[in-house]
Amino acid sequence: MRVAILGTGLIGASIGLGLRERVKGVYVVGYDRNRQAADVARKRAAVDEVAFSATEAVREADVVVLAVPVLAIRPLLEEIRGVLKPDAVITDTGSSKTEVLRWMREILPGHQGVVAGHPMAGKTEFGPAAAEETLFEGARWVIVPAVEARPEAITVVTNIATTLGAQTMIMDAEEHDAYIAAISHLPMMAAVALFSMGRASEAWPELSLLAAGGFRDMTRLAGTDPDMAYDIAMTNKENIAHWIDRYVVALQELRRRLVDVEGEDEFYRLLAATELDHTAYQMGKTGREQKPVGEKQSAFGVGDYLAGGWIRDKFNEAMTASEDRLRKMDEEERLKRRI
Amino acid sequence: MRVAILGTGLIGASIGLGLRERVKGVYVVGYDRNRQAADVARKRAAVDEVAFSATEAVREADVVVLAVPVLAIRPLLEEIRGVLKPDAVITDTGSSKTEVLRWMREILPGHQGVVAGHPMAGKTEFGPAAAEETLFEGARWVIVPAVEARPEAITVVTNIATTLGAQTMIMDAEEHDAYIAAISHLPMMAAVALFSMGRASEAWPELSLLAAGGFRDMTRLAGTDPDMAYDIAMTNKENIAHWIDRYVVALQELRRRLVDVEGEDEFYRLLAATELDHTAYQMGKTGREQKPVGEKQSAFGVGDYLAGGWIRDKFNEAMTASEDRLRKMDEEERLKRRI
Repeated sequence: MRVAILGTGLIGASIGLGLRERVKGVYVVGYDRNRQAADVARKRAAVDEVAFSATEAVREADVVVLAVPVLAIRPLLEEIRGVLKPDAVITDTGSSKTEVLRWMREILPGHQGVVAGHPMAGKTEFGPAAAEETLFEGARWVIVPAVEARPEAITVVTNIATTLGAQTMIMDAEEHDAYIAAISHLPMMAAVALFSMGRASEAWPELSLLAAGGFRDMTRLAGTDPDMAYDIAMTNKENIAHWIDRYVVALQELRRRLVDVEGEDEFYRLLAATELDHTAYQMGKTGREQKPVGEKQSAFGVGDYLAGGWIRDKFNEAMTASEDRLRKMDEEERLKRRI
Repeated sequence: MRVAILGTGLIGASIGLGLRERVKGVYVVGYDRNRQAADVARKRAAVDEVAFSATEAVREADVVVLAVPVLAIRPLLEEIRGVLKPDAVITDTGSSKTEVLRWMREILPGHQGVVAGHPMAGKTEFGPAAAEETLFEGARWVIVPAVEARPEAITVVTNIATTLGAQTMIMDAEEHDAYIAAISHLPMMAAVALFSMGRASEAWPELSLLAAGGFRDMTRLAGTDPDMAYDIAMTNKENIAHWIDRYVVALQELRRRLVDVEGEDEFYRLLAATELDHTAYQMGKTGREQKPVGEKQSAFGVGDYLAGGWIRDKFNEAMTASEDRLRKMDEEERLKRRI
């Protein structure tokens, strides 16, 4: 299998590393507009070979992975359309899917290998030097096939994802973009707003000295590659704006309960209920069936089942403890607190 | 030196562990309303002895540390006022300082050992089982002496903080509360709002499955002990409300630039400038003199100076790289992107 990876940054190089390590007989050709990034990927053995152009990389490829910022995908598709093998599988790694799929179907009409993708892994460091073979272990990898896609093309992309240790979820593009706006794009915008607000304050010299773990965690995403962030935002504007609005409402509601003396009880209940739900979430209570992550799509058999059982036990334990705490608080502790 | 620690949760037990490990001849008496928490602290060797009441713990103590949720401080002061030695030093670990200092001065009028404190360390796990001897290493510890405090009392509290590895900063209470609202209390509220908003969404089953590192980081503080969070909020309402308002404005401004086609350039500039500032902050560019953290208050001599030099070099390197990147982007890359 010959794989062309266009864009050898963090994600592209990590895919290359993982495939070369785990798939026998794979041959990876890398290309990056930034020649230095391609050379680093080559040095790190993330690719077998560096191509001098996107078309050269793609010409013989069975699988093409576009691992570039979202807005670079369209011109890249224009560039390679003429040389793409008719039966090649083409996928991407962008964080917005509606626009990407629209471009793919527009520029490669009738092509039956179009299966867009979104590996939900990353870190704030970027570039091939930060790449890791294990970057996708345990991560979700959303797969968004075009309606024309052959089942075999979907299988190829799914296999790549699972080989790299990810759990796949198939979704349609609109659904993906709405969800990801809430749990990925909004948090990024919230971090940018929080950091830039603090930074712009006249008290920043003092604030920056005092800022500890909480502020650091809450602003980590403000260090996201601005190119990537910009492209994501531009291709998922409406969903992001929608979630910013909902977030603002949530903040204003919290503020109301905080300052309103009548709201103090409500405020406490919100904090306690949120902490309880958060504990459940941390313990792996996710999804519709509320099974611990990892149990359902497991490919590891008994050991994993046991691990799932352990997580469930730990979770039940935590839930019981938290509920007890909440109940106890309601009954007696809360009274004592009213001094 | 006999130290009474009232409240043997994460902070109290960590102080006990640190003092017993690092101060020769110290004797630590612990008390907690929750007998089990006191017993765990004893088992972990965070205290030499568990007292049966707050008054018993305090009676002979040279130093009294109130390591309880902020709203529990006032009744505790009422309880121990009669038995506190006239020359005892009394301090606390609460995250709001104006109210605490007011209570201390009201309930212990004329007492010359009142030096409030705020060690800025913690984690979301709470209770003595999570305590660590090294919890305060590298953290800030704000010291807020009452105007009547003897210099020796200030020295005692400062020495405790530095012995535990923290860097002290002396401030007045109002100043402290305004700053901490911005960099600690607001992030906590922002995390609570973000998590409870997501949790309340009908799409939560899907959202929770997709939520990756970004959402996890941005909502970690939603797992804060609700008692602690409530007490902090109730004793620093106005400052927190003020910063929620500023945060809402920052989010709305970001949203405006996002959706407004005319704002796209502005939006990109904001992302790029924020990432640049964030890199600087991460590299240790903090404070008014913009010296790396750790350089100024160092007690380690040449080794630390070298470390500071290394940090500064790394920082300069990162700044230069980022500025180059930004400039290059402005000149050519940005043009190319306009496809």
